[in-house]
Amino acid sequence: MALLYSYQQLFSFSKNIFLKIGCSEANAETAATVLLSADLRGVDSHGIARLSGYTRLWEVNRINANPNILIVHQTPSTATVDGDKGLGLVVAPAAMQIAIDKAKNAGTGWVSVKNSNHFGIAGIHAMMALEHDMIGIAMTNASPLVAPTFSVERLLGTNPIAVAIPAGNEPPFVADFATTTAANGKLEILQRKNMDTPVGWVQTKTGEPSTNAAEVKKGGALLPLGGDKEHGSHKGYMLGSIVDIFSAILSGANYGPWVPPFPAYIPMPENMPGEGIGHFFGAMRIDAFRPAEDFKENMDKWIQRFKSAKTVAGQEKVIIPGQPETAMEKERINNGIPIEESVVNDLKELNNKFKVPF
Amino acid sequence: MALLYSYQQLFSFSKNIFLKIGCSEANAETAATVLLSADLRGVDSHGIARLSGYTRLWEVNRINANPNILIVHQTPSTATVDGDKGLGLVVAPAAMQIAIDKAKNAGTGWVSVKNSNHFGIAGIHAMMALEHDMIGIAMTNASPLVAPTFSVERLLGTNPIAVAIPAGNEPPFVADFATTTAANGKLEILQRKNMDTPVGWVQTKTGEPSTNAAEVKKGGALLPLGGDKEHGSHKGYMLGSIVDIFSAILSGANYGPWVPPFPAYIPMPENMPGEGIGHFFGAMRIDAFRPAEDFKENMDKWIQRFKSAKTVAGQEKVIIPGQPETAMEKERINNGIPIEESVVNDLKELNNKFKVPF
Repeated sequence: MALLYSYQQLFSFSKNIFLKIGCSEANAETAATVLLSADLRGVDSHGIARLSGYTRLWEVNRINANPNILIVHQTPSTATVDGDKGLGLVVAPAAMQIAIDKAKNAGTGWVSVKNSNHFGIAGIHAMMALEHDMIGIAMTNASPLVAPTFSVERLLGTNPIAVAIPAGNEPPFVADFATTTAANGKLEILQRKNMDTPVGWVQTKTGEPSTNAAEVKKGGALLPLGGDKEHGSHKGYMLGSIVDIFSAILSGANYGPWVPPFPAYIPMPENMPGEGIGHFFGAMRIDAFRPAEDFKENMDKWIQRFKSAKTVAGQEKVIIPGQPETAMEKERINNGIPIEESVVNDLKELNNKFKVPF
Repeated sequence: MALLYSYQQLFSFSKNIFLKIGCSEANAETAATVLLSADLRGVDSHGIARLSGYTRLWEVNRINANPNILIVHQTPSTATVDGDKGLGLVVAPAAMQIAIDKAKNAGTGWVSVKNSNHFGIAGIHAMMALEHDMIGIAMTNASPLVAPTFSVERLLGTNPIAVAIPAGNEPPFVADFATTTAANGKLEILQRKNMDTPVGWVQTKTGEPSTNAAEVKKGGALLPLGGDKEHGSHKGYMLGSIVDIFSAILSGANYGPWVPPFPAYIPMPENMPGEGIGHFFGAMRIDAFRPAEDFKENMDKWIQRFKSAKTVAGQEKVIIPGQPETAMEKERINNGIPIEESVVNDLKELNNKFKVPF
């Protein structure tokens, strides 16, 4: 059962919670905007469902509500940013803005971030570049749930990659995906429904294939995109590794099995080699390569060709990355956002705890 | 049956062939080095087995042996390069060098290339960055063999991505992979052996799953990494699309179904929107983010942790991307390179045609 809430209602509530934990007006607004963008775009696992999780991280002193976000190293096209333990929801837009500003002068901007926390959906940060006629890139590492090919140990997070590319008359191309076969949020949905996963999503704690959606909770692992070696899981493992290295080894954050867990009740890893979790952002000015109008005309042509391709039986059309999310966003702004009953209960608890109207 | 040849023998032969089609001494040397790097690293499908294919492209006037490779647009961190119909084997190292030179000044360098041809293996170009303590990135689009999720049409190439990352005492991390479940070269090997593919590699021309290794020759298609929607093929499709857009829409090359085919006997597509095929290169100076020594120390720690992870039954260790290829390279330099009989025959034909000693 899901209940419908208006965007404005959920936004105000989230913003008020962020104000209550001590965020500034501007930061609370940014954090709520980023958080709710997940609900608007249909990525329900990364939206308001996680609000209580962020407050619990703050309660155990793992989030600094008033971070001093600083550039600690830079060149004309790069910066390394210290997030000062801030909410990733606030650190990420600040870092992406630095990438955009660098790109204005140098053609491109690239920012690696340490000492941050979970930043919501990657796509929304990459999309900041679009209004500047830039391509935006965002990635982050995350707590270890994924076993590399041949491993029984969980050494990588679901480490998503987002790339946002402007078009002309068409909505932008926005890819935003975990580097695993399936995102953890999809497992959670199957668990709630008591359903099995397809083969290739998870393995048991001894590395056997499994279809149990609760396997990860029993010490098993998510699998890299590809599922097994025969189907290219080494490629998903490489992608997740690249995200980890760009996000954390370039910046000085924690990596691999040492990335701090999102649930506040899970103890921190021992002997952590860095600070907080890491992100990586990029912005490339289109007109650093060719006139933006030429590029957009060809992007429209690309999109129209793919959209109109002949489909397999039973499928209406080839999907352009980002277009379903753009449509969902319009629909949910107009008609409200469905919130699962368990999440509603969670929000009611926050309401009680923080005395914020809901 | 495979015969063993020394690296020097195959290198001289390839270089002489490139000289015969009119390459300069320097360009013939570069082309042979890039071509043979595939054989050394064990990517036999992209090495000397393709030498005759390049000569046939030259014969139909699709390759300019003496290209004037030019920057046509630039900013401090970017360049767009016109490859002047040159061998990709020559255009790619020139473009990657521009990315490296840009990075020296601006921190990073990014180069999109149009009007080029097949560039060999992506990894070798990315690896040019390593000796400069830079991260190297290389990608290219390729002739359409891949059906996006839900499509029966072939709209993308196998569009590989390579990322080379320096380490300290460990060999570098080098990822180099097609954005499909399996590279086309693997299909060719199964065809020669009359063996089936696993499910998830190819589909028939009406979009049904297939295990026939010859399916692509019958109008079927390779599948994006993931195989089907349930296993994340939309992610492989997104990756292949990003490679296509960065390589060709940023530069003004052909994209999607309009990318020129590698086999010279296949007619060119109609109404091509750009020039030649496209590549994209990146170089990021490590010390544009943090001191290179700190980075390398942490890369070694990352590699050692992953390499020593507990494995599933029957597997010796978790593989670090690039390490098997580094080992293969040493082995083949010392002991020779095995060449399939069919390829040997192909080289003998070249020997007859071009009067080059073999």
